[in-house]
Amino acid sequence: MISKSMKPRVENSSAIRAMFEEGVRMSRLYGAENVYDFSLGNPNVPAPKEINEAIIDIVRNEDPLKVHGYMVNAGFDETREAIAESLNKRFDTGYCKDNVVMTPGAGLAMNTVLRSILDIDDEVIVFAPYFVDYANYVSNYHARLIEISPNPEEGFMPKLDELREKINKKTKAVIINSPNNPTGAIYSEKVIRDLAAVLEEKQKELDTVIYIIADEPYRELVYGDDVVPFVPKYYDNTIVCYSFSKSLSLAGERIGYVLIPPESDNAEEFTSAVIIATRISGAINAPSLIQLAIIRCLDAKVDIDFYAKNCRELYDGLTEAGFECVRPQGAFYLWMKSPDPDEKAFVQALKEEHILVTPGSAFAGPGYVRFSYCVSNATVQGALPGLRRLGKKYFG
Amino acid sequence: MISKSMKPRVENSSAIRAMFEEGVRMSRLYGAENVYDFSLGNPNVPAPKEINEAIIDIVRNEDPLKVHGYMVNAGFDETREAIAESLNKRFDTGYCKDNVVMTPGAGLAMNTVLRSILDIDDEVIVFAPYFVDYANYVSNYHARLIEISPNPEEGFMPKLDELREKINKKTKAVIINSPNNPTGAIYSEKVIRDLAAVLEEKQKELDTVIYIIADEPYRELVYGDDVVPFVPKYYDNTIVCYSFSKSLSLAGERIGYVLIPPESDNAEEFTSAVIIATRISGAINAPSLIQLAIIRCLDAKVDIDFYAKNCRELYDGLTEAGFECVRPQGAFYLWMKSPDPDEKAFVQALKEEHILVTPGSAFAGPGYVRFSYCVSNATVQGALPGLRRLGKKYFG
Repeated sequence: MISKSMKPRVENSSAIRAMFEEGVRMSRLYGAENVYDFSLGNPNVPAPKEINEAIIDIVRNEDPLKVHGYMVNAGFDETREAIAESLNKRFDTGYCKDNVVMTPGAGLAMNTVLRSILDIDDEVIVFAPYFVDYANYVSNYHARLIEISPNPEEGFMPKLDELREKINKKTKAVIINSPNNPTGAIYSEKVIRDLAAVLEEKQKELDTVIYIIADEPYRELVYGDDVVPFVPKYYDNTIVCYSFSKSLSLAGERIGYVLIPPESDNAEEFTSAVIIATRISGAINAPSLIQLAIIRCLDAKVDIDFYAKNCRELYDGLTEAGFECVRPQGAFYLWMKSPDPDEKAFVQALKEEHILVTPGSAFAGPGYVRFSYCVSNATVQGALPGLRRLGKKYFG
Repeated sequence: MISKSMKPRVENSSAIRAMFEEGVRMSRLYGAENVYDFSLGNPNVPAPKEINEAIIDIVRNEDPLKVHGYMVNAGFDETREAIAESLNKRFDTGYCKDNVVMTPGAGLAMNTVLRSILDIDDEVIVFAPYFVDYANYVSNYHARLIEISPNPEEGFMPKLDELREKINKKTKAVIINSPNNPTGAIYSEKVIRDLAAVLEEKQKELDTVIYIIADEPYRELVYGDDVVPFVPKYYDNTIVCYSFSKSLSLAGERIGYVLIPPESDNAEEFTSAVIIATRISGAINAPSLIQLAIIRCLDAKVDIDFYAKNCRELYDGLTEAGFECVRPQGAFYLWMKSPDPDEKAFVQALKEEHILVTPGSAFAGPGYVRFSYCVSNATVQGALPGLRRLGKKYFG
């Protein structure tokens, strides 16, 4: 009854559910305050107050037929206009509303882009470790996700030689995600320039178009002085998939957009395709009320100092205990080398200390584990003694 | 750059946009009040006041991390529980939350079901005329939509002999839509029983599972004494795709659900697949705030008398002018035989009277036109003189 293409995904999800249920079971057994769950990526800083103020004002004062009704599939003109202007101000670009298509979050944004470019057996390249649902997004259209192996020697930056080898006529896009889930790394301007050079070279050599799909749900979550380069400035065929899930803590509301820069090849036809893909995905359009609300909140920010404090304390605690971590630059993830080459055994050892993390193999990055530090500070503090005990055990 | 699969859809959409732009152009030229646009399906009765009251109360008084945050991909437990209870009360069923998966509207609901069951070249059957995006939904997964020809002799009820002939080993589902877009017809209990009998027979003969996908965005829009049978009562392998778009005038908010009855084959695995499909579509979950709001509005109703009045006046006006119409029983569409066998020429003649309708060929129903009467009553009244003039022209 289930399609052949869906079957393995259903089986795999039972494993994820088992992990989730184990967390629930442990919370019942030991008390929620004694279980330190770093396995989920759900923002835990509330949305800025401007959001709720905007929602109440709109619902009270605007025409309900507009607020709750269909608009053009690309989204409200005023929302797209406001986003284009905000980008222009921040990045000195020249966008207008016609370059922006509103979508229910970055996940659906990526699906609309993939639906627009992929035929059966086409290829999309991604750098390991990566968010595992990229593989599922590509599978939705019976195309193939091609992995570039992890690059631990250089802070998990893209391996460009391997990329060059793996690009062929079937390569339609390269997905990048900076700040990165799961590594917390940011791709520097140099990295983006070098990546762009490879892709320009290959586009010319193969006479094809290869898009960069820049998945940017973590753009605003940056902790130090690092700058997240605006990728369309470095490579014309960049399509940005953005989400307000983390920047405004609206993950459940499903609101984001696709930016198709006018400099990209055949931008007008591509934009039409993305709008149609949004419609025929069945999503039809991004949710209407929240589209109107974010217009007033584009300059609002969640309290990222909260994440920064967790990040600092967790990173310091782990490195002092002897663990080898990638220093997080953005997003809310910490990527740590497992002291046991079988990171699943280490995940089990952490569990005995009531600490829950995600094994790296869930991100095509075996030998590592991921901590999500979008948790209460008490969770970080509560986990430190157990982490120190494990440090002693592994490093003496 | 655009996929081969997307290309024809982009070309086709230019035609739709041209029609839309023609409406805008005419409004500018003659004044909006002198153009009678029956071409769109956007609800024009406001959402019941309970919705906005619920939104304001939730935003004011509940935890923003819950209101705007991720929940399990299937949706909030309390929303699914409330929907299951509401169905149990109305249809004397025994559902629980685990039988319901919240989705961003019925369109995405259908896509999650199709993603769960379709492999490349599988087949889905539909009765013409039908909502054209069914073809696109099926194309998303490289499967084939198989049409059963229209049945004007019997009020556009399903042609069951043709259905029987066209079912084969590759047939995974039959889509039905009652009340129907575009015909406004409701499938009676007898029709559903006869359809179920054919499918039971074929399931046995071919030793396969054939689902009915009941697309039910118009369930609550019924004008006379007609009853919309609850399809799972008649056929175990029925999957219901429901939307609150029309019943609560929330079309822009994208809120609906998939109901997988426990009586259906392998219901538990199928439910897992639909939940995963919701996640990997990129939609992740139905929008969170509106999921919480509808809990309080399941018994609320939009003012369907408004549609009923438009329906009556339009139907009476058209039949008095000599046109042959299917009497609308539900939804907000009126399906009328074109007096010119080339209905596109007739659409043109209507346009000269400043009346905009959709040609039947857009629904695989050539020779007919569709009026959407979710318009102001002034639009109906304003169109009647022109319709009478055309009646005289065609019928003397």
